[in-house]
Amino acid sequence: MEFRLQPLTKEGAKLVSLAEEHAPALADRAGEHDRASSFPFESFEEMRESGLLKACVPVELGGLGVDSAHDVAVGMGRLAQGDGATALGANMHLTQVWLLSRFWKSVRDAGAKESAERLEGFLRRLASGQVLISSTVAEAGTDILHPHLQAVEAPGGWILNGRKSFGTLTPAAQLLQVTCRVTGKDGQARFAVASVPKGSPGVDVRDNWDALGMRASGSNDVVFKDCFVPEGSVSELGPWGQWSEPYLTGNIVITLGLVAVFLGIAESARDHVVRAATSESGRKKSDKYSIRHLVAQLEIDLAASRAMLSRTGVACDDLFRRFEAGSTPVEELHALMKDFQCTKWFVTRKAIDIVDGAMTLSGGSGYLSKSPLSRLYRDVRAGPFMQPFSPKEAFEYIGRVTLGLPPDLGE
Amino acid sequence: MEFRLQPLTKEGAKLVSLAEEHAPALADRAGEHDRASSFPFESFEEMRESGLLKACVPVELGGLGVDSAHDVAVGMGRLAQGDGATALGANMHLTQVWLLSRFWKSVRDAGAKESAERLEGFLRRLASGQVLISSTVAEAGTDILHPHLQAVEAPGGWILNGRKSFGTLTPAAQLLQVTCRVTGKDGQARFAVASVPKGSPGVDVRDNWDALGMRASGSNDVVFKDCFVPEGSVSELGPWGQWSEPYLTGNIVITLGLVAVFLGIAESARDHVVRAATSESGRKKSDKYSIRHLVAQLEIDLAASRAMLSRTGVACDDLFRRFEAGSTPVEELHALMKDFQCTKWFVTRKAIDIVDGAMTLSGGSGYLSKSPLSRLYRDVRAGPFMQPFSPKEAFEYIGRVTLGLPPDLGE
Amino acid sequence: MEFRLQPLTKEGAKLVSLAEEHAPALADRAGEHDRASSFPFESFEEMRESGLLKACVPVELGGLGVDSAHDVAVGMGRLAQGDGATALGANMHLTQVWLLSRFWKSVRDAGAKESAERLEGFLRRLASGQVLISSTVAEAGTDILHPHLQAVEAPGGWILNGRKSFGTLTPAAQLLQVTCRVTGKDGQARFAVASVPKGSPGVDVRDNWDALGMRASGSNDVVFKDCFVPEGSVSELGPWGQWSEPYLTGNIVITLGLVAVFLGIAESARDHVVRAATSESGRKKSDKYSIRHLVAQLEIDLAASRAMLSRTGVACDDLFRRFEAGSTPVEELHALMKDFQCTKWFVTRKAIDIVDGAMTLSGGSGYLSKSPLSRLYRDVRAGPFMQPFSPKEAFEYIGRVTLGLPPDLGE
Amino acid sequence: MEFRLQPLTKEGAKLVSLAEEHAPALADRAGEHDRASSFPFESFEEMRESGLLKACVPVELGGLGVDSAHDVAVGMGRLAQGDGATALGANMHLTQVWLLSRFWKSVRDAGAKESAERLEGFLRRLASGQVLISSTVAEAGTDILHPHLQAVEAPGGWILNGRKSFGTLTPAAQLLQVTCRVTGKDGQARFAVASVPKGSPGVDVRDNWDALGMRASGSNDVVFKDCFVPEGSVSELGPWGQWSEPYLTGNIVITLGLVAVFLGIAESARDHVVRAATSESGRKKSDKYSIRHLVAQLEIDLAASRAMLSRTGVACDDLFRRFEAGSTPVEELHALMKDFQCTKWFVTRKAIDIVDGAMTLSGGSGYLSKSPLSRLYRDVRAGPFMQPFSPKEAFEYIGRVTLGLPPDLGE
Repeated sequence: MEFRLQPLTKEGAKLVSLAEEHAPALADRAGEHDRASSFPFESFEEMRESGLLKACVPVELGGLGVDSAHDVAVGMGRLAQGDGATALGANMHLTQVWLLSRFWKSVRDAGAKESAERLEGFLRRLASGQVLISSTVAEAGTDILHPHLQAVEAPGGWILNGRKSFGTLTPAAQLLQVTCRVTGKDGQARFAVASVPKGSPGVDVRDNWDALGMRASGSNDVVFKDCFVPEGSVSELGPWGQWSEPYLTGNIVITLGLVAVFLGIAESARDHVVRAATSESGRKKSDKYSIRHLVAQLEIDLAASRAMLSRTGVACDDLFRRFEAGSTPVEELHALMKDFQCTKWFVTRKAIDIVDGAMTLSGGSGYLSKSPLSRLYRDVRAGPFMQPFSPKEAFEYIGRVTLGLPPDLGE
Repeated sequence: MEFRLQPLTKEGAKLVSLAEEHAPALADRAGEHDRASSFPFESFEEMRESGLLKACVPVELGGLGVDSAHDVAVGMGRLAQGDGATALGANMHLTQVWLLSRFWKSVRDAGAKESAERLEGFLRRLASGQVLISSTVAEAGTDILHPHLQAVEAPGGWILNGRKSFGTLTPAAQLLQVTCRVTGKDGQARFAVASVPKGSPGVDVRDNWDALGMRASGSNDVVFKDCFVPEGSVSELGPWGQWSEPYLTGNIVITLGLVAVFLGIAESARDHVVRAATSESGRKKSDKYSIRHLVAQLEIDLAASRAMLSRTGVACDDLFRRFEAGSTPVEELHALMKDFQCTKWFVTRKAIDIVDGAMTLSGGSGYLSKSPLSRLYRDVRAGPFMQPFSPKEAFEYIGRVTLGLPPDLGE
Repeated sequence: MEFRLQPLTKEGAKLVSLAEEHAPALADRAGEHDRASSFPFESFEEMRESGLLKACVPVELGGLGVDSAHDVAVGMGRLAQGDGATALGANMHLTQVWLLSRFWKSVRDAGAKESAERLEGFLRRLASGQVLISSTVAEAGTDILHPHLQAVEAPGGWILNGRKSFGTLTPAAQLLQVTCRVTGKDGQARFAVASVPKGSPGVDVRDNWDALGMRASGSNDVVFKDCFVPEGSVSELGPWGQWSEPYLTGNIVITLGLVAVFLGIAESARDHVVRAATSESGRKKSDKYSIRHLVAQLEIDLAASRAMLSRTGVACDDLFRRFEAGSTPVEELHALMKDFQCTKWFVTRKAIDIVDGAMTLSGGSGYLSKSPLSRLYRDVRAGPFMQPFSPKEAFEYIGRVTLGLPPDLGE
Repeated sequence: MEFRLQPLTKEGAKLVSLAEEHAPALADRAGEHDRASSFPFESFEEMRESGLLKACVPVELGGLGVDSAHDVAVGMGRLAQGDGATALGANMHLTQVWLLSRFWKSVRDAGAKESAERLEGFLRRLASGQVLISSTVAEAGTDILHPHLQAVEAPGGWILNGRKSFGTLTPAAQLLQVTCRVTGKDGQARFAVASVPKGSPGVDVRDNWDALGMRASGSNDVVFKDCFVPEGSVSELGPWGQWSEPYLTGNIVITLGLVAVFLGIAESARDHVVRAATSESGRKKSDKYSIRHLVAQLEIDLAASRAMLSRTGVACDDLFRRFEAGSTPVEELHALMKDFQCTKWFVTRKAIDIVDGAMTLSGGSGYLSKSPLSRLYRDVRAGPFMQPFSPKEAFEYIGRVTLGLPPDLGE
């Protein structure tokens, strides 16, 4: 019996199979990029060539047609068994494409021909591998509903000023999606998303990512200084500080993939120590009950984490198939987001526990830099920081939705 | 969105729907039977009348035809939302019938006409509601693989001597299934199951069930003193102390339903406090973050427990559909049992945590005997004791299977 | 080496030794009073005769002169190893006397002769065993800083109206100490404590204590209906809803003893299972690693609980020796209360875990009503409800004091 | 009120005060040595000059006369608030000197003049700061009771062959103390300790320490190849694989200081985030309950950890004052070791939890390499690996001693 998560669609199966093919090479490079905090450009080139990066483009537009959010997450988990930092970047791009594809379908079904065609063109470019998208919502000192990056109307477009942090994939991306704040003529602040070609004047992707883990993810700061983007580049989603349908959808799908990445890291740590314990030399030690006890704890945590991720993934697919982009009821999305937040908190914490348990099982050897466990231990700690929500917010949000209270947290 | 577990088959949906109809009456009687440690005969009569008790008899033999172990568990969970002790008893009977029906199908498919007909007759009697089956494996001072109840060959049958404990449903049962030890002519001890009509001479069902919780489950001791059963009443399953295919299957399916019962108890406790917190008077208190924090913790634990139970239930259905009774590979059953043990340990412990959290949320009020929480708190603690495995054995078993070591634990 | 908590003063050693003498008789009666929810009058009579109940009366006034709060707690822990519910009641009385004795010393040292003499007379009566004091702060629907029991000025005294709950020791007490709310002539609500002879007209001690555990503690509701008490019976401590020096002191000392009671219950459960595991028949089972693993967990939790309780006890003694009643700085008291709340939360939760672990170690046998574990499991759950603070408030309070925020929680 | 651990002797107070003076400079250098995995020679030079390194030499022989193991641990905790890796090294030396001083007293009291004088001479050299001692017990693939390093008798001395790992302080040490295995003429393997000048031919201190954390501790491998040491350099302590009085004593005292180091790291992390939360900009955020909740959890864990460490430290002092070196009963030492193992497991795990909680409180900022939290997070993970015992052995040992089973674990 196979207890790893399995794809539910045949398109998803293709993605998962590609991810499994890429994983070994990613694993080979992981140590080096971790030490140097360098970006794995070669891995992204390989994933472009294999077609993995176009997984979420519809088949009719040249992609693999993966439309199951569950399966995207399963794929990202497999990739993370090779290298978590690389999977983090890949997930950013794939889920952005997933959202665009879903949007395109709704536009097409609504008969908005011109818009549909524009989107089709862009999706074909994505299928051809010419564009990588990095999406950044985080800023220091605020939460993801209250960005301070300013977009001000200017002749023929908008001027952006501000700073984003944790800009995963920015070294390789051609296009940056960033959340921002627009102050309308009525003085009301509005929440928006801006699309900015990385090469635009006024965009400065700092080469400053230097962190405890996920060092190969290129999660740099990005500074926008009087950066001009043309009309059509800024989409308003609703009032600043409030959830909207597209933003809820986006945050669920993107972060679902991120959670799968941390599960993948945990699986990799678990496999490492189970392999050691069942090797010829390790076999002797597994005579000790304490080894079996610790292994059992890993298995329980892993089984629970897989079950939760899968269950939420299925719930996502279910909801997103019942409704098109633009028409998904916001309360349903909050119900789903609540369930997902249970999963997110649980899985990212359990992933930490699993790697910690693997570290214990290793004896001192996993603590040495030469052991992959020492990297996994640092990488996996990033999980709870993924937005939304931080551990400081998640309980509040879950409690509010459960008790029928308004779900928007204060700034 | 609905996050409670849902049946996956239409027959299962019928069972779940019946269980939901019975639950309110069970809840009404729960307090009284708990205080008196009395058996809810009236509830079993109602469940007989409604057809719930014949849920697992094949449709062609007069039952509801539920063959999804997942759905049986979902149904038992719903029943437990009314009363856990009653659900415990119902599960005993339903899963025994499930196993018989599965066995009948394999016998029929193998073309063993006579055997098939005998089983058909018995299943029709079960469908007509004439027989309740209580299955008892536990004995004081040993584990479930090493029963000390002796079955000794005698002219025309067997003589049983020994004592079983935790004989759930014995007050209402007509037939007792008990594990026993047979010593063959070769001196080798063998593991067997005996079917004993409760009215047989030498069977003494003690009226001695008096425990912390699950007080309405009638889990009495049963003493066998020179009890004669005719030939054909004792089925040998393999060497004493070793797992066999039918015993693994039985223990998975029966205990899966038991785990669902404890999840149902937890759901009931959670619903109790969420209802209170969202009532008019409670609404005010949910302004406090600490309330929301505690509620969020319940939701996370509940989501994880549901996900695990469902995942294992689906894995069960999957395996039991791939193979017939008698031909399921033992290693596959151990792989499934291992996954199930992760689920069992996790869910029964989390169920305790959830009721404990609900108790905390209640303030002191849940500690008073008049609150249903004070019963749920006692009932739910029985979960980890359900066999197999006790918490003292589960980690060892899980570790062994994971590491490829022999899965039979010492006595 | 002895790792149970030890008294630090010779007077304390006398109390602890008395408690150890009483414990076996308390244990003998525990099961019966638990079943009947009856009050152990005979045990209180014995503790009166032995002098235990006058432990905190100064030696010069006829008592044993125990002035170490640490040692009072150690004594209550020993008593609880016999029966927790009895210890709960004894602690109520002893700590009230401790507070009175401390107050008497400060009055005497301040040269307030008349007041000192009045207190001396009362303390001598306490030494003679004529009076048991029950102190009740809890009311349904509010916290302990915001009592709704009304004390209204009347000619020659006060009229009380309201209802208290969790009135431990009320069946045997002659004097009730209750917190109340006084509305002054300026319209400002004030926080006060009223002393009410139990026999006063308008006092109705309900015989309604019926709870999950601590069933022998007589923690009845007390209803006050137009109850008159003479001048001098109501002491105002400060504004309603705010902490004051005497109320902080009282709540620390009383609750410290309560926490020790729950530690004692846990020690009793642990001793029960270690005794079983080291008995001749149990010895065989302790060959199993899982048994040793579970025992080790108990030892760790117990060691941590003892260490915390002792540390806070020493900190109490230290502060209360540096300052007299009436002059202890409130910030120091909040610092101590914060430390104590860490201890209280930790020890009462760990006590629950320890009894739960003992239950697991027992196999199913501890779940039967005839096992003392089934009572300890219910008794120990009361711990976190002891005021102050409930688990719903404790984290908020600790966080506030640590971060230098105002320590008064909202109603 | 001060809740950090405080020294109990005046000599200890001097040590603690020196440690507090060194801490800021250690903190200033910590980041750099961590990045470079370089040894803080300058810090050891400063600690030599200040007299800290001679703290445990008796006053009459030129030291500070600290003989409280509790106070040594408190001092190491303070040093670790500056830098954990440096404190790890300092503890190695100080506790070795503590053991020598204790041994000297027993030798002197026994009237063994010659031995006493030789020890005096060595202790005076230690007082003058000419010698740093590094003690190494660990080897890959075995536990600390079963060293494979061979000491074989040779003319005029011994020949050593083998390899030690985790040789903390070896870059600066002049003398290496290593455990080894001697095979006597009777063929029985014996456990011994060898003292080896680092400059001896055949000693190769590898410069290969490269680990997740504690990177400035210089915990290199040391290879012994045909290394000759003269007679008197190898002390046999008893049979190989069995605990002896001096080895138990040594392992308790050394590791007590190590545990204090990890507590100090946790205190440093906690102070970092509490400082941030009470800064002007942080103040606003502490309006959020979730912040206060997380802070409260840190305080509880810290209070429990301090309480346990202190309690065991006091128990150590108590036992070591009741008995001299050479005459401490082994069962008493096992009872103490058991209590200490409870403390060791608890405190090193809670220290990890505290730093993890501080990381959560930091938001993402603590995850960046520039934050000291990112170093503390890596450093603190070493705690559970400190010997004795690893988490894989500790539960077994605690369980055995509690249940009265033989305390020697298998190899």
